Amino acid sequence: MTDLEIATRITPAPIREIAEKLSISEEHLEYYGKYKAKLPLSLLDEKEVKKSKLILVTAITPTPAGEGKTTTTIGLVDALNQIGKKSTAVIREPSLGPVFGIKGGAAGGGHSQVIPMEDINLHFTGDFSAIEKANNLLAVLIDNNMQSKKRSLQLDPRKVLWKRTLDMNDRALRNIVLGLGGTNGGIPRESGFNITAASEVMAILCQSKSIADLKERFANIYIGDTVSGQAIFARDLNAQGAMAALMKEAIKPNLVQTLEHNPAIIHGGPFANIAQGTNSILATKIGMSLSDYVVTEGGFGSDLGAEKFLNIKCREAEIAPKAIVLVATVRALKYHGGQALKELETENIEALEQGFANLDGHLNALKSFGVPVVISINVFSSDTEAEKSLLLDYCEKLGVAAALSEGWAKGGLGCMELAQKVAETAEQMDSSELKFTYNLEDNTLTKIEKVAKIIYGAESVILTNAAKNKLRRFEELGYGNLPICIAKTQKSLSDDEKKLGRPQGFEVQIRDFEIAAGAGFIIPIAGEILRMPGLPLVPAAEKIDIEEDGTITGLF
Amino acid sequence: MTDLEIATRITPAPIREIAEKLSISEEHLEYYGKYKAKLPLSLLDEKEVKKSKLILVTAITPTPAGEGKTTTTIGLVDALNQIGKKSTAVIREPSLGPVFGIKGGAAGGGHSQVIPMEDINLHFTGDFSAIEKANNLLAVLIDNNMQSKKRSLQLDPRKVLWKRTLDMNDRALRNIVLGLGGTNGGIPRESGFNITAASEVMAILCQSKSIADLKERFANIYIGDTVSGQAIFARDLNAQGAMAALMKEAIKPNLVQTLEHNPAIIHGGPFANIAQGTNSILATKIGMSLSDYVVTEGGFGSDLGAEKFLNIKCREAEIAPKAIVLVATVRALKYHGGQALKELETENIEALEQGFANLDGHLNALKSFGVPVVISINVFSSDTEAEKSLLLDYCEKLGVAAALSEGWAKGGLGCMELAQKVAETAEQMDSSELKFTYNLEDNTLTKIEKVAKIIYGAESVILTNAAKNKLRRFEELGYGNLPICIAKTQKSLSDDEKKLGRPQGFEVQIRDFEIAAGAGFIIPIAGEILRMPGLPLVPAAEKIDIEEDGTITGLF
Repeated sequence: MTDLEIATRITPAPIREIAEKLSISEEHLEYYGKYKAKLPLSLLDEKEVKKSKLILVTAITPTPAGEGKTTTTIGLVDALNQIGKKSTAVIREPSLGPVFGIKGGAAGGGHSQVIPMEDINLHFTGDFSAIEKANNLLAVLIDNNMQSKKRSLQLDPRKVLWKRTLDMNDRALRNIVLGLGGTNGGIPRESGFNITAASEVMAILCQSKSIADLKERFANIYIGDTVSGQAIFARDLNAQGAMAALMKEAIKPNLVQTLEHNPAIIHGGPFANIAQGTNSILATKIGMSLSDYVVTEGGFGSDLGAEKFLNIKCREAEIAPKAIVLVATVRALKYHGGQALKELETENIEALEQGFANLDGHLNALKSFGVPVVISINVFSSDTEAEKSLLLDYCEKLGVAAALSEGWAKGGLGCMELAQKVAETAEQMDSSELKFTYNLEDNTLTKIEKVAKIIYGAESVILTNAAKNKLRRFEELGYGNLPICIAKTQKSLSDDEKKLGRPQGFEVQIRDFEIAAGAGFIIPIAGEILRMPGLPLVPAAEKIDIEEDGTITGLF
Repeated sequence: MTDLEIATRITPAPIREIAEKLSISEEHLEYYGKYKAKLPLSLLDEKEVKKSKLILVTAITPTPAGEGKTTTTIGLVDALNQIGKKSTAVIREPSLGPVFGIKGGAAGGGHSQVIPMEDINLHFTGDFSAIEKANNLLAVLIDNNMQSKKRSLQLDPRKVLWKRTLDMNDRALRNIVLGLGGTNGGIPRESGFNITAASEVMAILCQSKSIADLKERFANIYIGDTVSGQAIFARDLNAQGAMAALMKEAIKPNLVQTLEHNPAIIHGGPFANIAQGTNSILATKIGMSLSDYVVTEGGFGSDLGAEKFLNIKCREAEIAPKAIVLVATVRALKYHGGQALKELETENIEALEQGFANLDGHLNALKSFGVPVVISINVFSSDTEAEKSLLLDYCEKLGVAAALSEGWAKGGLGCMELAQKVAETAEQMDSSELKFTYNLEDNTLTKIEKVAKIIYGAESVILTNAAKNKLRRFEELGYGNLPICIAKTQKSLSDDEKKLGRPQGFEVQIRDFEIAAGAGFIIPIAGEILRMPGLPLVPAAEKIDIEEDGTITGLF
């Protein structure tokens, strides 16, 4: 059975019933159809947030297929609810563009999914569209300002940083020339489109703590320089009010349910390389306001998602996880131990042992934050008993709690042991102090060095001359005290995607810097980062269809 | 008070109560927040449609400010309900882009508005975004096909007709070069963006009668030619299923309410020049399934909106209005009689008398359809008693029912006489035969000549050589039997926007043809038609804001 088939066999409970589990009254529920609702920001209660236990799910360095963080998150929530812990999954919204590319949809998998799966993957409650519109309104105001002689800010068309967005895998829009067709068509200049998840508006939404905060962050967006080199911000165009008005509904987190009818809050989905890769602060805190446990996730491996979740999001939100679940798979460890991708279904004890090094690397990184770790071994049917035992024994040897989990195959029932261990660990954790990798007062290079050495295991950091110049400019503009959000490959602990396992003695090269002045972080760029994906030779779109009764097919 | 201030002083009734007025059961209501709902297509009941009375609101040739068709439509519905006629307004959804331009919002005005006004103007239930995505998915599939050698349809990059859309007034995207940046960035070619309301997907949505019909229309979209001159359609890319899946919710009409808590169904908003300029067939028919009277409107003057409503939409939907309300204003008639725009607030009997000719022209055009007309004189505070009496006397002399209406100032109470006259007229109308201006079997040139002569009052029609060639191509492709949708200025009954009043003896020049093969009409182009507006020097966006409690300000 495909994920969509599994998902559509379950009749969702009316969303009112899910809301009742969280003691949300009818008046606080804004329905979007029968099975989705928006939650007002007034549900956020800082006192309850302090009492709630936050669990972060992260992973080892993933293979191209991913290691199952969302599946584990959902399975874990279902299992925690089964053992009597009032729990909510708080996760990212999937992007629409990739649905038409290779994979078809993304909201967990197998028996650990959120539903209505097809709605969540197609428009959902319109948040991505609102983000797109807010992003593009700023772009329009920029070009309109350049067009008008009377009120021109003298922006240099070659120095406009702000791009338009579209939630489609549209490679032909990566690099465009716009403003053609004569004087009525604007000022010709080079520009391009990013996919919506890569927009700074998305990053801003997820870092915002209120509407006022959202507006201030929009105002602070750095859009480019004038011909005389002066920095121009969104506030210079009075853009923030209208941008925020467009986000009136999008700022409210969305309530849906797992296949086992437990609450799931889905909100925001920024890229995990150039942005923070995790859902919104508001969603996490509203989840924590309403439940004893919140299980959430960060994108890619712990070197990206967890590092940013902890150093950027938790710092801003003043929250800290009580436990971190590190998702590992036999398959990925064997891959890191040298087994070829297409051989991963064959038992290979030696490769597995070699691959433990990658697990070591991630454990070591996570240990630095002072939060206890539970390893979740996400079981695949091709894993052999010998492989699973060996991995469990290794975890025991390391003294780290570990459990096999089978959320994909069995839902919550497949994650009972994991839930027990997570609950024990979280309940024993009395500190809510988080040891950040760097202080905001450290200079930017020091911050990068600390992350590179402590988290990636690097030897040193080097900046290209171009990067040094860019950094100097950003420090002049007063951005020296922002946290950093390193854009790096997810395929290796290092900045070289070919270095599997646990690379040693490597140097991280920062070739450029970008700024997300509204979101509030500097982005050191290590490697090439694609902000607009393309479609494959045979796009998934060709198989997607709808029947007369509205049933969607071919989404997976 | 601004429209937004008037609108937000009224607390909307829960949308469930509005639905109850239409006997829609709870299970058929899909909530979007507390005051909006989507209506399932299963509510369409052809038997009830036949019993319902459809009223079309159109207007004389408008001044730039518009003559108040939507305000009249809403005021009339409120008044009809007051005199005991179960009535629903069925109107177009406003486009988002222009909200940030000059005017700020569009959903009626004064005391004749639909609410929640700010939601309706900002994203609403996401229909425009879904249309945008369906449109752009097809664009992405086109560029992706050109990119791939193995499955290429050999589309000629210079002959791709399909453009992308964005619901923003973004003049810099009118003409672009995309696909730059090397082999990974696609095939460089000229293209551009239209505003979403101008997308053929919008026109298709509004002509569709079911999901299957929607899919077939998508499949039929003509996207361009191959290098060897063969026509390529969306079906050649297997695009229709995924495009229709994206429209899963957008195909359902939206229920909101007037300020007086009467039902309003809002759905679709195609341009009234290059498209049919009226809401969806499904919305109109669902409205007719649920109420005794449906009041709806067509864009611009009767030469555009009404002609297309009757010849394109009514023909396809097999419906016919029982009465047509022709909105006239003293202001516009004086403008047509030669008074300058900025002098319109000064009494000018002579100009008014001269301007009657424009009213004559529209009455004459409407008479040809065999549907009785009621003139609604939309009163402005600057109209003098002498002017109003003169106009009423003139209508009496013509033997046409007429009433002053004051929907803007007084809501339904301001439209009571109009409602009485409309109800009397509609109830006396026993035929439901509509005399179309042309037959589908007429050749395209004959169709254009009939519309030009009978509706516009033209002497003759001339085609440029370019237009003749294009028409020959479309006839070869089998589009000769489609209805026509003439793109012409709305500022004159003729094709020359400078000819006010009732032009005589003019020739209509068709300089080009376009095709909306999915929507199902040929578009003869008379004059320049802008499909992507720009922003003014001081955009309305600069004044729009949101407060911490979510209240929107500055929308008007």
